[in-house]
Amino acid sequence: MTYTLLHGGTVVDVSGQTLTDILIKDGEITAVGNFSHLSEGDIQRIDCTGMLLLPGGVDVHTHLDSPLMGTTTADDFESGTIAAAMGGTTTIVDFAMQTPGSTLLDSLQVHREKAKHKAAIDYGMHMCITDLYDGAIDELPVLRQEGVSSLKIFMAYRGTLMLNDGQMYDVLKGASKAGSQVCVHAENGDVIDRIAEELVAQGKTGPGYHELARPPKTEIEAVERAIRIADMAEAPLYFVHLTTEGSVEAVARARSVGMPVSAETCTHYLTLDRAIYDEPGFEPAKAVLTPPLRTFEHREALWRGLNSGALSVVSSDHCPFCFEDKQRLVGADFRSIPNGGPGVEHRMSVVYGKGVAERKITIEKFVEITSTFPAQQFGLYPQKGHLGVGADADVVVLDPQGVTQISAGSQFQNIDYTLYEGWSLPGEIKKVFSRGKLVAADGQFVGQVGNGKYLQRAGY
Amino acid sequence: MTYTLLHGGTVVDVSGQTLTDILIKDGEITAVGNFSHLSEGDIQRIDCTGMLLLPGGVDVHTHLDSPLMGTTTADDFESGTIAAAMGGTTTIVDFAMQTPGSTLLDSLQVHREKAKHKAAIDYGMHMCITDLYDGAIDELPVLRQEGVSSLKIFMAYRGTLMLNDGQMYDVLKGASKAGSQVCVHAENGDVIDRIAEELVAQGKTGPGYHELARPPKTEIEAVERAIRIADMAEAPLYFVHLTTEGSVEAVARARSVGMPVSAETCTHYLTLDRAIYDEPGFEPAKAVLTPPLRTFEHREALWRGLNSGALSVVSSDHCPFCFEDKQRLVGADFRSIPNGGPGVEHRMSVVYGKGVAERKITIEKFVEITSTFPAQQFGLYPQKGHLGVGADADVVVLDPQGVTQISAGSQFQNIDYTLYEGWSLPGEIKKVFSRGKLVAADGQFVGQVGNGKYLQRAGY
Amino acid sequence: MTYTLLHGGTVVDVSGQTLTDILIKDGEITAVGNFSHLSEGDIQRIDCTGMLLLPGGVDVHTHLDSPLMGTTTADDFESGTIAAAMGGTTTIVDFAMQTPGSTLLDSLQVHREKAKHKAAIDYGMHMCITDLYDGAIDELPVLRQEGVSSLKIFMAYRGTLMLNDGQMYDVLKGASKAGSQVCVHAENGDVIDRIAEELVAQGKTGPGYHELARPPKTEIEAVERAIRIADMAEAPLYFVHLTTEGSVEAVARARSVGMPVSAETCTHYLTLDRAIYDEPGFEPAKAVLTPPLRTFEHREALWRGLNSGALSVVSSDHCPFCFEDKQRLVGADFRSIPNGGPGVEHRMSVVYGKGVAERKITIEKFVEITSTFPAQQFGLYPQKGHLGVGADADVVVLDPQGVTQISAGSQFQNIDYTLYEGWSLPGEIKKVFSRGKLVAADGQFVGQVGNGKYLQRAGY
Amino acid sequence: MTYTLLHGGTVVDVSGQTLTDILIKDGEITAVGNFSHLSEGDIQRIDCTGMLLLPGGVDVHTHLDSPLMGTTTADDFESGTIAAAMGGTTTIVDFAMQTPGSTLLDSLQVHREKAKHKAAIDYGMHMCITDLYDGAIDELPVLRQEGVSSLKIFMAYRGTLMLNDGQMYDVLKGASKAGSQVCVHAENGDVIDRIAEELVAQGKTGPGYHELARPPKTEIEAVERAIRIADMAEAPLYFVHLTTEGSVEAVARARSVGMPVSAETCTHYLTLDRAIYDEPGFEPAKAVLTPPLRTFEHREALWRGLNSGALSVVSSDHCPFCFEDKQRLVGADFRSIPNGGPGVEHRMSVVYGKGVAERKITIEKFVEITSTFPAQQFGLYPQKGHLGVGADADVVVLDPQGVTQISAGSQFQNIDYTLYEGWSLPGEIKKVFSRGKLVAADGQFVGQVGNGKYLQRAGY
Repeated sequence: MTYTLLHGGTVVDVSGQTLTDILIKDGEITAVGNFSHLSEGDIQRIDCTGMLLLPGGVDVHTHLDSPLMGTTTADDFESGTIAAAMGGTTTIVDFAMQTPGSTLLDSLQVHREKAKHKAAIDYGMHMCITDLYDGAIDELPVLRQEGVSSLKIFMAYRGTLMLNDGQMYDVLKGASKAGSQVCVHAENGDVIDRIAEELVAQGKTGPGYHELARPPKTEIEAVERAIRIADMAEAPLYFVHLTTEGSVEAVARARSVGMPVSAETCTHYLTLDRAIYDEPGFEPAKAVLTPPLRTFEHREALWRGLNSGALSVVSSDHCPFCFEDKQRLVGADFRSIPNGGPGVEHRMSVVYGKGVAERKITIEKFVEITSTFPAQQFGLYPQKGHLGVGADADVVVLDPQGVTQISAGSQFQNIDYTLYEGWSLPGEIKKVFSRGKLVAADGQFVGQVGNGKYLQRAGY
Repeated sequence: MTYTLLHGGTVVDVSGQTLTDILIKDGEITAVGNFSHLSEGDIQRIDCTGMLLLPGGVDVHTHLDSPLMGTTTADDFESGTIAAAMGGTTTIVDFAMQTPGSTLLDSLQVHREKAKHKAAIDYGMHMCITDLYDGAIDELPVLRQEGVSSLKIFMAYRGTLMLNDGQMYDVLKGASKAGSQVCVHAENGDVIDRIAEELVAQGKTGPGYHELARPPKTEIEAVERAIRIADMAEAPLYFVHLTTEGSVEAVARARSVGMPVSAETCTHYLTLDRAIYDEPGFEPAKAVLTPPLRTFEHREALWRGLNSGALSVVSSDHCPFCFEDKQRLVGADFRSIPNGGPGVEHRMSVVYGKGVAERKITIEKFVEITSTFPAQQFGLYPQKGHLGVGADADVVVLDPQGVTQISAGSQFQNIDYTLYEGWSLPGEIKKVFSRGKLVAADGQFVGQVGNGKYLQRAGY
Repeated sequence: MTYTLLHGGTVVDVSGQTLTDILIKDGEITAVGNFSHLSEGDIQRIDCTGMLLLPGGVDVHTHLDSPLMGTTTADDFESGTIAAAMGGTTTIVDFAMQTPGSTLLDSLQVHREKAKHKAAIDYGMHMCITDLYDGAIDELPVLRQEGVSSLKIFMAYRGTLMLNDGQMYDVLKGASKAGSQVCVHAENGDVIDRIAEELVAQGKTGPGYHELARPPKTEIEAVERAIRIADMAEAPLYFVHLTTEGSVEAVARARSVGMPVSAETCTHYLTLDRAIYDEPGFEPAKAVLTPPLRTFEHREALWRGLNSGALSVVSSDHCPFCFEDKQRLVGADFRSIPNGGPGVEHRMSVVYGKGVAERKITIEKFVEITSTFPAQQFGLYPQKGHLGVGADADVVVLDPQGVTQISAGSQFQNIDYTLYEGWSLPGEIKKVFSRGKLVAADGQFVGQVGNGKYLQRAGY
Repeated sequence: MTYTLLHGGTVVDVSGQTLTDILIKDGEITAVGNFSHLSEGDIQRIDCTGMLLLPGGVDVHTHLDSPLMGTTTADDFESGTIAAAMGGTTTIVDFAMQTPGSTLLDSLQVHREKAKHKAAIDYGMHMCITDLYDGAIDELPVLRQEGVSSLKIFMAYRGTLMLNDGQMYDVLKGASKAGSQVCVHAENGDVIDRIAEELVAQGKTGPGYHELARPPKTEIEAVERAIRIADMAEAPLYFVHLTTEGSVEAVARARSVGMPVSAETCTHYLTLDRAIYDEPGFEPAKAVLTPPLRTFEHREALWRGLNSGALSVVSSDHCPFCFEDKQRLVGADFRSIPNGGPGVEHRMSVVYGKGVAERKITIEKFVEITSTFPAQQFGLYPQKGHLGVGADADVVVLDPQGVTQISAGSQFQNIDYTLYEGWSLPGEIKKVFSRGKLVAADGQFVGQVGNGKYLQRAGY
């Protein structure tokens, strides 16, 4: 049939809700409105009565099939994108790591190869710069042409990932000139390394000490410094995974004077807290991710930051390592546990259930932070991120009366635990469309591996 | 014909632009999309090729037919709403003044009578509280039922309009309880009165001294105080006509910690500056409006504030007194000149020409600050403020290649001067639709007086 | 004998401690040093071995024999200054109230008459302005000539004491021109009156509700406003009795940009907290003073403020009303309880015992905030406030090994309670000299009523 | 004779001025006061009528006989301390550089040897840490016992002097534990290196571009970062040579919340400005010092900072390289010019002439920032830094009616230029006493080389 009509649902966008229909043709939204006059012949009607129709989720922070800390993340592009689709995310932007000794462009090709033929939903890529060899900056315009309009740098992990302030300045300048933006992992890694060493010297080696080694001030300092350096480089700046009240304040101050600074937080910082680090045995290792989970006060500040606009994106920072692998790889102390956790599958459900259903945010704000803003920030809008005419028909059909159950046993992520084990949340994703094709329906993956397209992203 | 189709234009909303068609039925937008399949029989096609289709302007700060400073504003609801329509504004929210000795409800009826049968576009009303008699607070829920969900109070003009801090607290509390919001004129009137007296005592009586009597700090102090008092009353707060960098910073700080504080600035603060006060003779009286025009530095801060989101609305503060009347009414010194100036007709054109065309703001931001945000802030959205399905078909057809000429001689405002005399601006408003009916076309008013409806506004 | 030699003690001033002798002649310090070469004939040697020699306390905030809230404070200049002397305070600056219907100058004479022949220690006077009649400002230079170089105004108590912002501006301007400074009671009285009314309307009439009627934000707002207005008037500003963290921050900000803003806090805000308001019966009335006592967090912020220099003075705000009178005068609710409490006698002992002995401040800081800074701030330095050559020989001999017991039964203040009942504090004042004459010795008053001199204070 | 009596002058200390005498015995002040009763036999009376008696200057930032940037500073301890003495400075604290490949303790001995037998006035030493070898932190308590209670670290000059943030944290922690403090050179060296490289790549190689390579934000960022890191390390922090308004604000904020942060600025930042960098030829090289000279606005902010207390010390940062040597050593661009300039000789005269005489600061503030505060900050008080009983008799006799002429030709500094060439300043230093001995008199050095003592400084 030529047309698909999503009929009877409530379409949500950033500024409101409308009881209306969506007409899809050739994978795109061709019209929004009331279409009683359309003949039945060429149209597939899908009844969405009582449902919310949301733009497909855009998760701009995932690490699939990615070499990190001596191992590889547990999800490849197949399991990872299926899990994403099942959770209502129809677009990811994954981090391509720079291979040591290799150019940025070559490293990108390596990562693109991993995705090809495997992705079940559309995907773009950021490029991580961890070794600023001569000529690296010159490749930024080429990357930009390849649709990679965002770079990532690290202010932590000296010796493996970290750039110094001068290199950060160079990347910021070069990116700005190329029409790209820079994503920053903002933690003062040098101070963290010293604190970690102090803890280990005191015999504090268990996984829970990971948290104490990375106190809030190590993040806040780095955020303030990055803002200053971006200001000197006259370049836009995007903070990944912010976790503290002080960081939100710093970003808010920068934005209030018109600086092009944006920031994300992640599902787990909004809905979990540091209590897990006090649990016995190796359990805290499940939350050995960076930055660590924080106190309740910081968590509330993050919700406030989303509502005030200081924070504009919620990502998953999906960087999964099996609990079993964490146990296998831990050496003398917490420093050798792979840093990261799963999340791409449950981001939409958890933020809806804990945010919208508990009235911390409106449904419009939910759409904004899980789809519209990430798409706009990373050059995917208006193709992705809204349910407007001409956009890709990436649609989530969510039943506000339904319930979502989370458990490691039933998840699609290729990992043996979840931080939301046993949670039962209001709201159930019934159907997910990717470019007009049904990919998830009533808990079953009905899409096709390899159908996901590489996204050429626009510049900043 | 049943349907009107605006065809071939670029539809703009807050988050982007789409080359698509708008289908109108019974005064509402019934669909957005591509409608080649529609039969020609029942449809009026309007060619909008090359045009921008914008949601009709929403001007939330006008004073029509209003008793102020011993006289009455020069535009009544007929001339005022025709001028608005000609300038692309399809909704106004006018300030009903409290008549001395009269209740709020009675005062509202008086003002509604003035509008009935005269308005050419839709209109709502705010209620000004200038005398907090016993029982006034009890009327706020009734006003709310009448669709008046916003009150206005003055921190200046002791003896006529001003409330003290305790009364402001009472109004804020009462409004919040009634689901209404409070608009504040933030200037420290008591200090201003003292400075003005000093100036007059020094023989500085000419109209240009109006500016010196109201220095930026008198506004900033009042803004900070009002935020503190709203915080204590746990009530939302809306600032009318902010003009200074310090005010923008204060609002930004409040918003960044999640306080429900919003603010507007006006066309003239964004595009003019204080130089007029240095002109000879009575000329400066044209800009005797409150607060006064400021320096270039403040003006730039206002544009920054719009872009950062600290400011969310641009209004006209249309409060016209003929230059001739200003001359007739001036007494011993500048203090007796009626405070106010015209603007409802040129708000959209001037902000477009000076903002969008000069790349200070994007076209999306233009829609946001002139239409979407004011509609949302004042309970008119989604009926007004966007071009979505179900919304009133208030549409502005703007030719970005056209030019707008402004002069007192050719304006529709019933007043003998304009602050933008002789300006020639990029962008020309070709057609304006109010609820699907053409009201302005190629510089002619083609609507009908009395067709404007009173708008029941939703609460905060 | 011609000379008195205080021998063997440790002399403390703001920048250090010296084991040396003080030589006194004709009521003044004539030399500091080692005087073994002096012949014994003409010298009275007083052994101070093991003692600290401190400059006599300067308490710049007392209300003696003062009409307030329909009654009169319990201490007159005789009992009040004897109590001060016993507690190591050798100078007070008392507040002369403006008598309703009377001029400032006449009111000052009335208050000076009350002091004459009664004061046991030296005293100056501030003038309170509570009714800004025509011509009041013109009297400020005359007051200045009379040695009254500081005025006080109230931002609270509408109808009796409060001035509005314009009047505050006038007083600030006039004072600055006269070389005087303005002391401000910073609370938003209008908001407080509304909150109090709300509480009473809810049946919350008991004395403990006094606290809830005056939340921290009512003080902070007033502090910020006063700073803004003083900035506009280009005048110095002194805050009496600050109690909150936000106030300290506001003053620190102002000072850090070079504004002439200073501030005091009081003994009780530093050492007590709000718990008393939860006590049963009428007990909370003992702490019905303005502003009220605050939480522990605010208290710590005040100590920090003293150490950082944001706060420079600790006064007693001695404004005593007998508990019996508070009970007698209370009407329908807490609003009619006279506001105030005792303190001039125990300021030095309590701040020493809780501050120096508990290592919150150094002994040098103690001298600074109880003597040197208040003397400098109010035009009494170098005559008062230090132990330098040429200064009045006002000396406190304190035994750091001794102990001070406080109880209503044994105090010299003419009042039936103390907020420090039963306290036992490290440090004991052994002797007090006023202009070289012993006035307190081992717990006995040995001075002479009437010996206190009126102090002509220098300008700001 | 046993006693020396400085008679008839005005003694100045931080809190006032007294017309009195100073009695000196055995190099110490033994009494202050009026001594008409002293017999003439054993006393040398020195008439100081009309003179100001000030505590000898304490300059805590000098680099004598010091290897830097491939050469050695032009003054050794002989010429440098004679110049200091001639300019009214009786104490210096010089920076001992760590010799590459050598321990801190050995490096200290090397520098102490350079001073021995050469110093004409008393001196202490800071220790610079530029290579944090294993075990370096363990030497800090030993250094402390040697009287070196302050370390210095650099946030600039990667490859030669710079420590990274983790090393800074270690030094701060170790110093705090040892009772020492850390002085920080706060500039973001990595960013500076990148900007410098950009400039050179653009052909901007002349000496004036030194300024552009080190913009104010590179200093401000480093100041904010160092405060954050000191806060995490819970250690005191002292900033050397601050130059910008933003730095002053950052320090003020830290101090206002009670953090143990202090800061100095230097003579030249207070009295010169960036205009010299626009001069033709090699002339700008005279002001190739770090940080560079700034604009007038920053300069005014520094004076404000001194008055508000945010800045507490004025040092010379005496680091002289002859103009001839600068010319000889410059290579391809400004980066190879030795960074530094002279100043120990003129600090007191210039700050008096430009500060006190031009009423930017009071004479008491002058004493505070040039003598008392530096002595207190660096463990030299009360031996140095005031004119109290028991202090070393280091006294400057200054004639406020006299005039000081500055020129390279007549200076005692061993260098061929001065930044104050041709200046004629109010105020003339007539005599300087070092521990009671006259060392400078009417422009002649009358002291003795080798008489200067090494000062064991107390901890923080």
